[in-house]
Amino acid sequence: MAIELYDTTLRDGTQGEHINLSVQDKLLITEKLDEFGMDFIEGGWPSSNPKDEEFFLKARKLTLDRSKLCSFGSTARLLQNIENDPNLQGLLHSETPVITIFGKTWIAHTSKGLGISEEENAELIYRSVSFLHSHGREVFFDAEHFFDGFKDNPLFALRMLKAAAEGGASRLVLCDTNGGSLPHEIDAIVRRVLAETGIPVGIHSHNDGDLAVANSLAAVIAGATHIHGTINGIGERCGNANLISIIANIMLKMDRNFTFVEHLSQLTSLSKFVYEILNMPPDGKAPFVGRSAFAHKGGIHVSAVMKDSSLYEHIDPKLVGNRQRVLVSELAGQSNIRYKAQELGIELPEKGELLKNLVNHIKELEHKGYQFDGAEASFELILHRELGNFNPYFEVRESKVTIESRKGSKNVDQAVLKVAVGNEIEHIAADGDGPVNALDKALRKALIRFYPQIKTIKLVDYKVRVLEEKRGTSAKVRVLIETGNGRDTWGTVGVSTNIIEASLQALCDSMNYHLFILKASIPSGEELLQD
Amino acid sequence: MAIELYDTTLRDGTQGEHINLSVQDKLLITEKLDEFGMDFIEGGWPSSNPKDEEFFLKARKLTLDRSKLCSFGSTARLLQNIENDPNLQGLLHSETPVITIFGKTWIAHTSKGLGISEEENAELIYRSVSFLHSHGREVFFDAEHFFDGFKDNPLFALRMLKAAAEGGASRLVLCDTNGGSLPHEIDAIVRRVLAETGIPVGIHSHNDGDLAVANSLAAVIAGATHIHGTINGIGERCGNANLISIIANIMLKMDRNFTFVEHLSQLTSLSKFVYEILNMPPDGKAPFVGRSAFAHKGGIHVSAVMKDSSLYEHIDPKLVGNRQRVLVSELAGQSNIRYKAQELGIELPEKGELLKNLVNHIKELEHKGYQFDGAEASFELILHRELGNFNPYFEVRESKVTIESRKGSKNVDQAVLKVAVGNEIEHIAADGDGPVNALDKALRKALIRFYPQIKTIKLVDYKVRVLEEKRGTSAKVRVLIETGNGRDTWGTVGVSTNIIEASLQALCDSMNYHLFILKASIPSGEELLQD
Repeated sequence: MAIELYDTTLRDGTQGEHINLSVQDKLLITEKLDEFGMDFIEGGWPSSNPKDEEFFLKARKLTLDRSKLCSFGSTARLLQNIENDPNLQGLLHSETPVITIFGKTWIAHTSKGLGISEEENAELIYRSVSFLHSHGREVFFDAEHFFDGFKDNPLFALRMLKAAAEGGASRLVLCDTNGGSLPHEIDAIVRRVLAETGIPVGIHSHNDGDLAVANSLAAVIAGATHIHGTINGIGERCGNANLISIIANIMLKMDRNFTFVEHLSQLTSLSKFVYEILNMPPDGKAPFVGRSAFAHKGGIHVSAVMKDSSLYEHIDPKLVGNRQRVLVSELAGQSNIRYKAQELGIELPEKGELLKNLVNHIKELEHKGYQFDGAEASFELILHRELGNFNPYFEVRESKVTIESRKGSKNVDQAVLKVAVGNEIEHIAADGDGPVNALDKALRKALIRFYPQIKTIKLVDYKVRVLEEKRGTSAKVRVLIETGNGRDTWGTVGVSTNIIEASLQALCDSMNYHLFILKASIPSGEELLQD
Repeated sequence: MAIELYDTTLRDGTQGEHINLSVQDKLLITEKLDEFGMDFIEGGWPSSNPKDEEFFLKARKLTLDRSKLCSFGSTARLLQNIENDPNLQGLLHSETPVITIFGKTWIAHTSKGLGISEEENAELIYRSVSFLHSHGREVFFDAEHFFDGFKDNPLFALRMLKAAAEGGASRLVLCDTNGGSLPHEIDAIVRRVLAETGIPVGIHSHNDGDLAVANSLAAVIAGATHIHGTINGIGERCGNANLISIIANIMLKMDRNFTFVEHLSQLTSLSKFVYEILNMPPDGKAPFVGRSAFAHKGGIHVSAVMKDSSLYEHIDPKLVGNRQRVLVSELAGQSNIRYKAQELGIELPEKGELLKNLVNHIKELEHKGYQFDGAEASFELILHRELGNFNPYFEVRESKVTIESRKGSKNVDQAVLKVAVGNEIEHIAADGDGPVNALDKALRKALIRFYPQIKTIKLVDYKVRVLEEKRGTSAKVRVLIETGNGRDTWGTVGVSTNIIEASLQALCDSMNYHLFILKASIPSGEELLQD
């Protein structure tokens, strides 16, 4: 039997810290989720804020091929006022085919929170569900704090579920609202609920115990057929259950299917898309879809991975749209470097002094704090230089950077460089917005006469990490720079106790790499004189 | 029965992408782990790289109260050469009381990877373990790819475990090396192993399926009594099992104990400490210890949380050293600031112009990129200044920093400052190791005559984070500095497009804060003339 996917990225997901989605963002995500194949998309809580009301208004114009849109809200507040309850009215106005309402199923919440009796709470649930149902909507019941409630008072919790079922709810969604349940508890409780009600059961879990995915899978094994979660596990506190991990596990490990999901290989791009819209950096370590999820670092692993990937990867990364990567690191021996070289299309000698020197050189650099993970261009230049294929296009002989500030007047940041190109020496200065910017400008100014090709390149990213933090202000820093030419980007690295020096190294590598790729030639003195 | 904790942050953890620990870092973490109460600390793989060899050499001088240090390596490579195997020799040279060696237990790895027979592999394991054991070391056996191996060929996998047991291994650690197993598989296989061997079983899991914590708990429920993992779940690909989550779940949810862990409330600070040493931003969403783990956003939740926290939190955050937070939107900025001020023991006016200005000032600073999380001293100075309790002890009127490098000679980094104190102007210069160090030295030199109290303070941490990364080298940076006087430490912040300027702001705040706390008085011209 196929399992249903209920996405609540747009509602529960936005409860997370630093999560902010505009109406337009929500519409874009809705279309993407439909394309991927969600059964249900919970768009928001219409009567709680104007943004969600606007969303449901605009969402009517979307053409969704697979997903049904759901609005979310609570049961009515007062038994005497079901018909005119503003929350239920808001839900009807949202015009979604499905309405999900939550009710209290933990006795402590009913008595302390609402201050009503068991009888009244059951009646509130029954009448709220049946009111919405009588208006022709499909109604799902979210049993709030169900697992904590069941552990406290199973009869109370079950009675509330039955009230929802009698009212016409077509799904009973068991919520681990505080996120603290363990998988074996979920298993036992889901089985009990299925035995006592005749209605499909769903699971809605949170990650407060680092177990949201496991709890969702446990519920499925126990018979649940409807799963709530968010893309990338965003959500309040530690987040909701991560649908990305759940989908991959269920399809690839448990051999079950979802109603609509056909192209599991879109999983990585779905994850990235949502991060993009959220304007959040993706989690590199994310299972299945993270940049590091199939990245190998250990030396022995790498040689084995090259022999047979399936021995060192739990699934084929292509199945989820991800890819294998091999990282270069001090922990790796020859085989890592060889693999990386192969990826870059560089042929290394089989053995001998040259190879040994190269490996030692890279190990030594990493010992100093160099790291080539985000700086493949620097790595490539080192290989080519050791192999005798590359000579630097220029050399910075002297540099002097001055940062001057004076109360009441504008800062002056100036770089003066003496740069050797071929037989020529260029002595040049530039001002900038901060010292690194001044250096960047001066370097370009010095080189442009010799290498007009550098005109097209642009810095796209600049990162500083302090190594040996305990050394205070005299600590070593590592600077990573990413440069682009509008088509490709490449990363370079510099390390020094002097942040300016480290930046200059990375800048020089970046320019050299660009010229190397373009196969620029070092101008001879004669050519230059003709200028 | 108490469960043993085996920490491999320093070995398997460092296989993670962007993870880099110096020998000094590793020693600091070792001491912290011992203090927290790990049973075993795996320090590295001695024969694989010089850094780990250096670590074990230096680690001999540490006094560990609780933890036993372990070195890690593989079984011997050749049956004919057990005695002189360089890997086993390296393990012995590490002089750790415990040695953990891994061997192949998946038949595919033995045949394809090593190219040897079942018989030979069992013999290799038996003889490697017994060789180390005969030298008086306790030997743990890491059964590599055990779960995949068992699913493929249970008899082969079990035979390898038995070979290790016969060799004298005192723990059989079952590794889910590729991280793809499901909790119910772990459960069944651990039970089978326990039934067939008489030796304590451990679990070593990876998070490729987002299930590493669940898998570790499943193993414990099935009878495992020894858990491998890393702090914050760092490690190759998607990381190792996160010991932070495991420890909290086992003690708080499963009512089991560990040998030494007494102060679970140190869990949050342990997590932060390791992030700090790694120079990685902490994961705000991390279960139990993350900054958002007990942060409430939803309006209805917040009022209920204030009534009774236990209704909306799976555990009391204090148990793990964390705290509840209520997130306040931009509109309610006042109450947030009031809450923080209260924490710092500063009384704010109930309302009025002063409060409004203060709130606006802080909002404006936060908008510019200031962040007071790690910089409460800067925040406190702002409050006191706005309230009229604080005037800066000095003012830097002019600064000029020069960074000069010349091929073949030593770098010269010089700072020249014009600093006003009372009616005096100090015009002074200093050289340093990098520009920030030069600034630091010059500032101290300028102030020492007026404020000898600054002699005792020392920088303990320096961090740079680039904001608006897309702006390349002219992007804004935020500098966080932590300063200590041997007893307390305090954090200050500076923000600018110029890294030197941002550093100077944070340095000035730091000195001012120290003087403010000591209630230093600004010297008048007369006093100074008497010097």
